[in-house]
Amino acid sequence: MRVKLTVAYDGTNYSGFAKNEGVVTIEGELNRTLSHLAKENIEVIGASRTDAGVHALGNVAVFDTGCNIPADRFRAALNTKLPEDIRIIRSEEVSDSFHPRYTDVQKTYEYTIYLGDVQPPIKRLYSWHIYKELDIKNMIAASNYLVGKHDFTSFCGVNGNQVKDKVRTVKDINIIRNENELTIRAIGDGFLYNMVRIIAGTLADVGLGKISPLEIKNILESRDRKLAGRTAPAKGLCLVRIEYI
Amino acid sequence: MRVKLTVAYDGTNYSGFAKNEGVVTIEGELNRTLSHLAKENIEVIGASRTDAGVHALGNVAVFDTGCNIPADRFRAALNTKLPEDIRIIRSEEVSDSFHPRYTDVQKTYEYTIYLGDVQPPIKRLYSWHIYKELDIKNMIAASNYLVGKHDFTSFCGVNGNQVKDKVRTVKDINIIRNENELTIRAIGDGFLYNMVRIIAGTLADVGLGKISPLEIKNILESRDRKLAGRTAPAKGLCLVRIEYI
Repeated sequence: MRVKLTVAYDGTNYSGFAKNEGVVTIEGELNRTLSHLAKENIEVIGASRTDAGVHALGNVAVFDTGCNIPADRFRAALNTKLPEDIRIIRSEEVSDSFHPRYTDVQKTYEYTIYLGDVQPPIKRLYSWHIYKELDIKNMIAASNYLVGKHDFTSFCGVNGNQVKDKVRTVKDINIIRNENELTIRAIGDGFLYNMVRIIAGTLADVGLGKISPLEIKNILESRDRKLAGRTAPAKGLCLVRIEYI
Repeated sequence: MRVKLTVAYDGTNYSGFAKNEGVVTIEGELNRTLSHLAKENIEVIGASRTDAGVHALGNVAVFDTGCNIPADRFRAALNTKLPEDIRIIRSEEVSDSFHPRYTDVQKTYEYTIYLGDVQPPIKRLYSWHIYKELDIKNMIAASNYLVGKHDFTSFCGVNGNQVKDKVRTVKDINIIRNENELTIRAIGDGFLYNMVRIIAGTLADVGLGKISPLEIKNILESRDRKLAGRTAPAKGLCLVRIEYI
């Protein structure tokens, strides 16, 4: 039986999703807890290997098991054993051919920026603090150049260079301001390494007047990471949902 | 010179606002940091002595100092030395007669409930999780009985019984649902010990059908804490602002 988990986590205390010797990761905690529960060695396959400090409301992980726990019971069973900063939102059986990374998908990420002189402590782990005003009209104009099917080499972190095909389709970018919080919501069929954080950092640089909206077109065409803006901090990023289509 | 601080904090790691031997409190951290900065013994007077685990976007604390740091510079000076879960939003000089507790005031609190099967970890420290559906219409009907000038003995925790006069004016209670989050916003001239948490717990019990909206009138009139609902957990509560009027 193949089981699909929808996983939410507070990434603050983890060295990212992907398991790695000697550090605490979401995947490592899932493997350890599942193996203990099912009394067999289980290794999940994650849909998105989010970075250290990045949060999720709905990442996806899949595993195979021969144990007799019904698929929908894994949610409650795991939630009593996992650390409180990882929670299973849903568990369900899927077909044996379902692969969380090689199936057509729509991913939604949100990047949150806190605007204002001082960032309230309750927001400190979940938003990037920028104390200067941002020109949101220019940010929206810039974001429009990113929507569509493009080669996003300029928006890919150096650690992501083993991926050859850097063409991705960004379906939509919404920029919403609610009082002091600015949310950049990016929807697409997949994102390269650090891509959403580089988009957020570049749009912030546009908002600050360091990059003009028109330059985004040239930055994309240049396929040169050095021309885009900075990589926004991990803590402002949240993987909201993954829809298989 | 008397200085007024507007203080925001994440209450998760503190034993409340008020200083107390042997535990870490917001007031204790403010006193320690201010005394170090001004090179004299400083003790602040807080406007609201919030409980352990309660958060604030805008509590108020006042202190007198003879040092030559300009009042508006205390913000930046304190923010470089305070722990990252306490931040000064504003610092300003006030008249020597200003007292944060004996001045007419309007306080705004927000209590957040997370509705849904599983509470996402990024919300776990800032909301109360209720997995059953709440009847919000009934909650609003119940809240209307609480608005106005009343003796709130039934909504005062036992530790608050040294306060003789339990008459308070609740100016408004708003109940707002935004996707899975329900916010109860209470505005008043002051609140008794645990009062907002008992209001939130009682309204939740109304939403769950354990208490009918009409009963709220009798609960108020009974002046008996045992008749009201439970005290909602501290972590869902946030002191949003204090306005001196």
